[in-house]
Amino acid sequence: MTASPLRILVWNENIHETRGDQKTLTHYPAGIHTTIAEGLRRHFGAGADVSTATLQDAEHGLSQEVLDRTDVLLWWAHAGHDQVEDAVVDRVHQAVLSGMGILVLHSGHYSKIFTRLMGTTCSLKWRNDGERELVWTVAPRHPIAEGVPHPIHIAQQEMYGEYFDIPAPDETVFLSTFEGGEVFRSGVTYTRGLGRVFYFSPGDQDFPVYHHPDVQRVLANGARWAAADRERHAFTAEYHSTGWFAQ
Amino acid sequence: MTASPLRILVWNENIHETRGDQKTLTHYPAGIHTTIAEGLRRHFGAGADVSTATLQDAEHGLSQEVLDRTDVLLWWAHAGHDQVEDAVVDRVHQAVLSGMGILVLHSGHYSKIFTRLMGTTCSLKWRNDGERELVWTVAPRHPIAEGVPHPIHIAQQEMYGEYFDIPAPDETVFLSTFEGGEVFRSGVTYTRGLGRVFYFSPGDQDFPVYHHPDVQRVLANGARWAAADRERHAFTAEYHSTGWFAQ
Amino acid sequence: MTASPLRILVWNENIHETRGDQKTLTHYPAGIHTTIAEGLRRHFGAGADVSTATLQDAEHGLSQEVLDRTDVLLWWAHAGHDQVEDAVVDRVHQAVLSGMGILVLHSGHYSKIFTRLMGTTCSLKWRNDGERELVWTVAPRHPIAEGVPHPIHIAQQEMYGEYFDIPAPDETVFLSTFEGGEVFRSGVTYTRGLGRVFYFSPGDQDFPVYHHPDVQRVLANGARWAAADRERHAFTAEYHSTGWFAQ
Amino acid sequence: MTASPLRILVWNENIHETRGDQKTLTHYPAGIHTTIAEGLRRHFGAGADVSTATLQDAEHGLSQEVLDRTDVLLWWAHAGHDQVEDAVVDRVHQAVLSGMGILVLHSGHYSKIFTRLMGTTCSLKWRNDGERELVWTVAPRHPIAEGVPHPIHIAQQEMYGEYFDIPAPDETVFLSTFEGGEVFRSGVTYTRGLGRVFYFSPGDQDFPVYHHPDVQRVLANGARWAAADRERHAFTAEYHSTGWFAQ
Repeated sequence: MTASPLRILVWNENIHETRGDQKTLTHYPAGIHTTIAEGLRRHFGAGADVSTATLQDAEHGLSQEVLDRTDVLLWWAHAGHDQVEDAVVDRVHQAVLSGMGILVLHSGHYSKIFTRLMGTTCSLKWRNDGERELVWTVAPRHPIAEGVPHPIHIAQQEMYGEYFDIPAPDETVFLSTFEGGEVFRSGVTYTRGLGRVFYFSPGDQDFPVYHHPDVQRVLANGARWAAADRERHAFTAEYHSTGWFAQ
Repeated sequence: MTASPLRILVWNENIHETRGDQKTLTHYPAGIHTTIAEGLRRHFGAGADVSTATLQDAEHGLSQEVLDRTDVLLWWAHAGHDQVEDAVVDRVHQAVLSGMGILVLHSGHYSKIFTRLMGTTCSLKWRNDGERELVWTVAPRHPIAEGVPHPIHIAQQEMYGEYFDIPAPDETVFLSTFEGGEVFRSGVTYTRGLGRVFYFSPGDQDFPVYHHPDVQRVLANGARWAAADRERHAFTAEYHSTGWFAQ
Repeated sequence: MTASPLRILVWNENIHETRGDQKTLTHYPAGIHTTIAEGLRRHFGAGADVSTATLQDAEHGLSQEVLDRTDVLLWWAHAGHDQVEDAVVDRVHQAVLSGMGILVLHSGHYSKIFTRLMGTTCSLKWRNDGERELVWTVAPRHPIAEGVPHPIHIAQQEMYGEYFDIPAPDETVFLSTFEGGEVFRSGVTYTRGLGRVFYFSPGDQDFPVYHHPDVQRVLANGARWAAADRERHAFTAEYHSTGWFAQ
Repeated sequence: MTASPLRILVWNENIHETRGDQKTLTHYPAGIHTTIAEGLRRHFGAGADVSTATLQDAEHGLSQEVLDRTDVLLWWAHAGHDQVEDAVVDRVHQAVLSGMGILVLHSGHYSKIFTRLMGTTCSLKWRNDGERELVWTVAPRHPIAEGVPHPIHIAQQEMYGEYFDIPAPDETVFLSTFEGGEVFRSGVTYTRGLGRVFYFSPGDQDFPVYHHPDVQRVLANGARWAAADRERHAFTAEYHSTGWFAQ
């Protein structure tokens, strides 16, 4: 890990907020991205530079210059997946494959960037009745699980249930259960190219989940784990001549 | 897969039965092994030769001759793990590594053969209050999940909960939830040497779980998946001379 | 596995052949797809219905009707990846996620369908000097490795070398070495949705690799392993109401 | 990671040295463990406390007190696997499951501790003709691969070849090729309980491989990756009462 501050960018489509959904504004008056960013700043202190961007910014706030100076990107989206320009998705995708980390949050499972990284539909079961979610650790040695209680207890949350149509995860860190009896692989990791991907489902626009200290810890652990820690590199076809080493 | 009948051996320590535990005898008057064997016979018909053996048999019914003609072994044990002779465990271990399949059931998680195959403690959380267990499929394309409802609903069962101290599974086929809110990786697969291993937790001496048609289907699917399908081979150190191919 | 014949479709861009590349026509006078299909027919006999399609056919020979009656698709392409219409790639992608198996061969690593299923660049090292390739089995219990010599010896083949920019495979079945000292993960499996994916690198338009009986066996084993064996299902978001089971 | 120095213990059976094998003494006059320890000290400087122990020490230098203050153990052995007392193996095994990291080196593949952690025979092909080994990275984002050239070029080394009878690795970091055309999974990781396990094959008593700066870097990266980074915990069966949370 580099000793210089982690450069973290929290991205939010910022639609529930800008269209005035009351539940969202009650829990996240300055936007979900602001609450997530504050939690990360509290956790990292001087150890991270945390900034935010939204769909409404020019290039959605995701220019090449911004991505080049981002170690890890957090992605929250729900109602506006289709409004994200393909050119920006291409750019984010390439940044991940070249080494930028990405955390995809909750309803981001259906975002263009996540489905492209996964290659599957990323469909799931859902129900939004504000049920108790318990988040159990099944990889207790994983850096993302460090200091996380077993289980995390979330009083009210949307239910996400299996079957979750994702590739078999490289690592399954968390499993969630809900009052209705459903189960969900709520914390899973992948590597794509040089980029690390962490999907974490707890968190919703209707509930104050991103104020939960344990959820904030998971996001911080995930950001540290996923953050780029070496030079970016874009893999391309490479001709390898005979006698490629003459020593 | 061979066209000849699968040779399945169901092993049971047969202790709850022989010491007269009433709940066990109520649900399994002829022994847990008999109920499991009947379910397999119903499923496979002429497609399998199903036999049984118990701890009380000579060599626990697991002589080399028996293992040599067994394609897949099912292992049920709870109260007598220590009573299984190490020489027999060595023999079963070698048979698995050489290609025999094995299904380890429920409390068999603490058996000598399973902990030896896993290399971990195989510890877990438990509570025996007869709660509802729901068994969810998270690998819908897996042969063991074929024809299995999503979820399987078991009205009363012992709770097994995470953290389950096993190696990261090769494949996680089923996840279970319980009324208390716990989660468990209830159907997981491994390959060890040439042998396939399937651990499946539903099933207990106090509840009639092995009479459940969906549980019987999982055991049948698991037996077919794990059964040896090629010549036994014991891997050993092999000197590989220079010019090992001269063509 | 269904008892009815496997419905296998061998797809080839058929560009080297139609533009008259002499090496290709020398080894594959009727086209690479024809040689692959003949090998499969020899292996399966009445156990499979093997047909072929090419880029030049209407809808590239991949209409919805054709895909609906295909259990497994083999994909060979090299010079014309960009000529495959996106609408057809969408259709094939959806078919795989719904349960159709797919084998992606050699230079198909750069095809639209493979990179979309993988979510990575699928870049690699290469050199086409006709070197010896040795294909070693590292999953001896895998169905695709059944009856395959260790190693397969291919006298002349294009070199494909690491780093191969793919997701960590679900299963690594084969590893290849080349005279130059390179290594390649030459046989890897994935599941995407209900569809099984097998990538196998040996095979090139300039060398008679698809006439090699061991390579033909791997393709047959791979086709059997990947072939759809249950009803097609397209995963979509599913609302799961409270009290979803009332028993 | 803790900011305090990594506590690294390099263990060597120290048999080739003590019985006076000339090749070993030529390359490792103070013992293989001393050369490995010096490489780690060079790499970590004040960042690690590196000590050594050998088979000939009381309790093989592996008392409970020593293990309790060890973050990661490196294990080199070849000729004396049977001379390691089972009570010490039990203690090391329990330490790994409780969180101590372990690096198993080269011929340690046949050690009691490694075969117990793996649950398989750990057999392989071998030939000791001093051939070139090339070590290729197939997980470029892995911490153990950081700063490692692709490939590492080792002029002379014993050949280890597949099939290597180990469980499917959690992560395959390195693949090696040899002049004879063999391949080997030469750098693989596992987690067992809370302990991380890294097996790395390059290194032999007859060749100066442990003086190779790239090999030294891999061992340092591996030690940092595997080192315990949280409180030790021994998993045991745990009764989980109903109403286990009353909040």
